[in-house]
Amino acid sequence: KVLWTVLVTMLGYASSLPVGEDALCTAEDLAKYRIIFTGKWSQTAFPKQYPLYRPPAQWSSLLGVTHSSDYSMWKKNEYASNGVRDFAEKGEAWALMKEIEEAGEKIQSVHGIFSAPAILSGTGQTSTELEVHPRHPLVSFVVRIVPSPDWFVGIDSLNLCERGHWMEEVSVDLFPYDAGTDSGFTFSSPNFATIPQDTVTEITCSSPSHPANSFYYPKLKILPPIAQVTMVKLKKSQLGLSAPFINLPARSNEIIDTVS
Amino acid sequence: KVLWTVLVTMLGYASSLPVGEDALCTAEDLAKYRIIFTGKWSQTAFPKQYPLYRPPAQWSSLLGVTHSSDYSMWKKNEYASNGVRDFAEKGEAWALMKEIEEAGEKIQSVHGIFSAPAILSGTGQTSTELEVHPRHPLVSFVVRIVPSPDWFVGIDSLNLCERGHWMEEVSVDLFPYDAGTDSGFTFSSPNFATIPQDTVTEITCSSPSHPANSFYYPKLKILPPIAQVTMVKLKKSQLGLSAPFINLPARSNEIIDTVS
Repeated sequence: KVLWTVLVTMLGYASSLPVGEDALCTAEDLAKYRIIFTGKWSQTAFPKQYPLYRPPAQWSSLLGVTHSSDYSMWKKNEYASNGVRDFAEKGEAWALMKEIEEAGEKIQSVHGIFSAPAILSGTGQTSTELEVHPRHPLVSFVVRIVPSPDWFVGIDSLNLCERGHWMEEVSVDLFPYDAGTDSGFTFSSPNFATIPQDTVTEITCSSPSHPANSFYYPKLKILPPIAQVTMVKLKKSQLGLSAPFINLPARSNEIIDTVS
Repeated sequence: KVLWTVLVTMLGYASSLPVGEDALCTAEDLAKYRIIFTGKWSQTAFPKQYPLYRPPAQWSSLLGVTHSSDYSMWKKNEYASNGVRDFAEKGEAWALMKEIEEAGEKIQSVHGIFSAPAILSGTGQTSTELEVHPRHPLVSFVVRIVPSPDWFVGIDSLNLCERGHWMEEVSVDLFPYDAGTDSGFTFSSPNFATIPQDTVTEITCSSPSHPANSFYYPKLKILPPIAQVTMVKLKKSQLGLSAPFINLPARSNEIIDTVS
């Protein structure tokens, strides 16, 4: 396995083809990134059943981890862990943090954990820093959609190391996922456990294929992105410190104003 | 100023007296800590008007910063910044993150920002890592009390460097503060801006001295701590990495069960 991985890495270098995510990252040092999460869940983009009261549309805290390919926080078409279930259903982070800790201890597959504050509206931004390591170049995170039965957005194992170099900047559009643990159909459905548990599935404008579903828009081909995440590599200053920020806009919705 | 600071530091060494927080920290390297926040806001300890519904008693995301004495996030008996006001009143973190960024850029008084996920009940725990630097050895953070008019708990400028060494572990009991920006008297008071703004004050069992106040317990001498924070220095492993965790309990209320 190790030899094979090295070979793939060398092949990647020689041919300038992207290296598989399982490849060794040959970047020399740690890298720090600022991660900026932007909620785009507006009533204009998602008019159906848009939650206005108790609670209005909002986003939970963001919980993320930098890791190797030996760890997976969540994966499409696989079963959510108990920690992801607690987080997706209720926003409770502890069990998921505990799972990450155990993965870090047992198989040294985790470099660090990161978190960003909740956003108290459907549109808006939050931000934090994360650190990646050549042996732990992957980033995963989850943010719960509030209110919702067990819906979330996130990233699964994004590799920030590309052909031996840390990427300077990467942006990803995010779409809703169903954790497969609660059978509620709409944002404000009462709790209704899915037994047996289903796998994590992407929610699209046509799936679940039922008019009652909050994201069912039969006239659309694809949903607009409900959120976006951007990671920007931080430069080391002459003091050996990273600049903690990269000129955040004054208001959390300024970027949204200009983008949309 | 600099000469005086060095003198104080040397005096501190010579006499083994605590060094003022303005002193230079002579620790050689960065240090990483795990910070664990424990909510102790139970109905047993705080029976008066304990919030049970919409929303039940809980804690916002934790937002913190490591910094030098040139920066202050919040301070008792001084006016809260707009960022602290937004966070204490609504849990919105953006303006406060932006203030921290500006302090970091203009006067290089900030090393980094950290955040931990919200706790969805009055008792429970959350955790994250933070990094301190010899020139930025102070830790400050805030956590909003939810629901409340503008009440929070937090730490102001705790120095993790003691006589040239990073402290191994420190625990602090936390008590509620009023940000001085909303005149609500009870957890679920409607918004009622305080004009002109008041300073940040500690809320005690006798102050504000009015029976309607949610923390008014005339028979008590002092309130029980409503929360607690512990910071534990992380050891560098032989790989040069910090261990990201320090054996968190399996459930977020385990420590509480044993302590109280």
